[in-house]
Order: sequence, then C-alpha cells, then structure tokens
Amino acid sequence: MRLLKEKVVYKGSFMDFVVREYDINGKVKVRQLVKHPGAVVMIPVLPDGRIIYEKQYRFAVGDYIYELPAGTLEPGEDPLETAKRELIEETGYSAKDWRKLAEFYLAPGYSTEYMHLYVARDLEFVGEDRDEDEDITLVLMTPEEAERAIEENVFKDAKTILGTLMYLKEVKGC
Amino acid sequence: MRLLKEKVVYKGSFMDFVVREYDINGKVKVRQLVKHPGAVVMIPVLPDGRIIYEKQYRFAVGDYIYELPAGTLEPGEDPLETAKRELIEETGYSAKDWRKLAEFYLAPGYSTEYMHLYVARDLEFVGEDRDEDEDITLVLMTPEEAERAIEENVFKDAKTILGTLMYLKEVKGC
Repeated sequence: MRLLKEKVVYKGSFMDFVVREYDINGKVKVRQLVKHPGAVVMIPVLPDGRIIYEKQYRFAVGDYIYELPAGTLEPGEDPLETAKRELIEETGYSAKDWRKLAEFYLAPGYSTEYMHLYVARDLEFVGEDRDEDEDITLVLMTPEEAERAIEENVFKDAKTILGTLMYLKEVKGC
Repeated sequence: MRLLKEKVVYKGSFMDFVVREYDINGKVKVRQLVKHPGAVVMIPVLPDGRIIYEKQYRFAVGDYIYELPAGTLEPGEDPLETAKRELIEETGYSAKDWRKLAEFYLAPGYSTEYMHLYVARDLEFVGEDRDEDEDITLVLMTPEEAERAIEENVFKDAKTILGTLMYLKEVKGC
C-alpha cells in the first residue's frame, strides 16, 4: 500500500475531512478519513460513589444521549491537561486524583481520533464554564444504576458504555 | 437549534462528508459530520470457547490493530443480515446462533454511525471471501487471553474493547 495523493476536502475548526489515493496491489483506491486531534473521556466519581454523566443534544445524530464527560485535545496538549480542563468546563468539578484506565481508537476505519480514558476522584465543585452553545444536563448515577442503563440500552454511546464497563469491572472486582 | 444549510463536501462510496450551518440562539454555527449507513460488529465464539479476532491494517491510523470482525450496512440492509454476510466474508465462518448484545453510536459528536453488536455461536467453516484489498489475519483468543489483551492495552479499538468486556461480563457471570 502506497500513498499517492492526499487532499483536504474540508478544513474544519478542529478536524479535517481528507481524501487519499492509495496504490494497493497496483490498483488506485480512494479512501476517506477524518483527521482528528484526539480526545479524552472521564469517569468522574463523587465521594458517595455516584458517577457524573451528561445528557446532551448531539446534532449529528439528532438526539439527546447520555455520555461520560469528554473533550477534544487542543493542538499539542497533554491528554491529562485536556481532561482536567474539560471536566471543570463541562461539570464544574475539579478532581485531584486522576488515573488512566485505557486508550483506544473510536473508528479506526475512517477516523484518526484516539481517545484517553481516565477515572477522576477527589472531586470539588468549583463552578462550570461551558461553551454557550453546549446544551448539557448533569445526571448522577450509582454504579448499579449505570449498569442497568447499559443492560436496558439507555446508554447508546460507545465510549460511555466502554468506560462504564471498565469501571464496573474494577468496582465489582471481576 | 435550527438547521439553515447542508452541503455534501465529499460524496464517498458508502459515507459522505457533510457540513451544516445551524442557527443556535441567534448565531450561525458551522458543524461537520460524517453520514454513515451504520455497521455491525460480531463476537464469534468457537465451540472450544475461543473468540475470533482479526489483525488488520488500518490506513486511517497507519497501524495493524486487533479488532472483532465488523462490517458496514448496505443501504436498507437488516443489521443481522449484514452480520451474517460479513462474518463469512471476513472469517470464513457461518454461524447458526445469533444474539444481539447492544447497539451504540461510535462518535456521536461528528458521525451518524450506529453499530449493532452480536454474539455468534454454532460456527461452521465454509471458506472466506474477502475483498481483494483487505489485509486480515485471524487471531483466536480464549476469554482469559482477551481479558489480558484489554488489561495490557493490546486492544486499541473501542468496539473491540466494548464487545469483549460485555461478553466477559456474561462469561464470568458478573
């Protein structure tokens, strides 16, 4: 596989739409991809054990969905710094205790997005600072409620199901 | 939030790159999205309990990664039919026993891709039928090996980690 050509078909504010031409076994093949700077997702755990989720409107899918707090990396930003910044911006909570749980591609078939998953504890409310066009409601759930939300397909977001399952595995010790 | 304009900036063979303009609280905001027909991901379990994974090159991320077998819906196709077709094409196994485990968005911030997760059992080898440009190696793992692959960050793909965690939860009964 040899890259022949690359064209940015749309340059966005933080991600680009790109089309490439490859030589694959002597044939020219066209491939599309999203160039994304990477992202973070956080499992914020309150002192009483409840997890902070967000219910927010997602224009791309045209629906309100439950998600763990998440955010996009600024160019060159350390993922942990992004996580600290975004947790405060979106939930109003600052966390002292951070631990990396995993990292993964969201859609490696067509997106470079690489995501870092953290557990955030030792939370303190300092006041949120959301972008004006973010329509977010916080929803607190016990681990049991979160588990039920997975089982009943109330959670419909991959990073949120993945992060919650990984956290439940720890909490339940299995 | 009111949609003002939508423009397809690139029409692909199966997914489109789209840019929209919205009126959000009186201001015009530009949003990018990938229009995707949806997809399936399968956990194929052999009679001896091993799970079939694939190691494949992903041009978008420039690396070989482990993934559960997956595929994209043809327009109007029932997800279970896609799953049956893609499992044979990619692994050479036909399955008689299919069960839906979950469904979710991969990247609801910018992609309409909605994915259906199945467990496939009662497998029979009938011979694969891969697209000529697919560079896939099958890798069989016991549930214990798959669990270790998650813990050691050998798995770097969201749908694969999610699907494996959900299956392990069943196998371990917790």
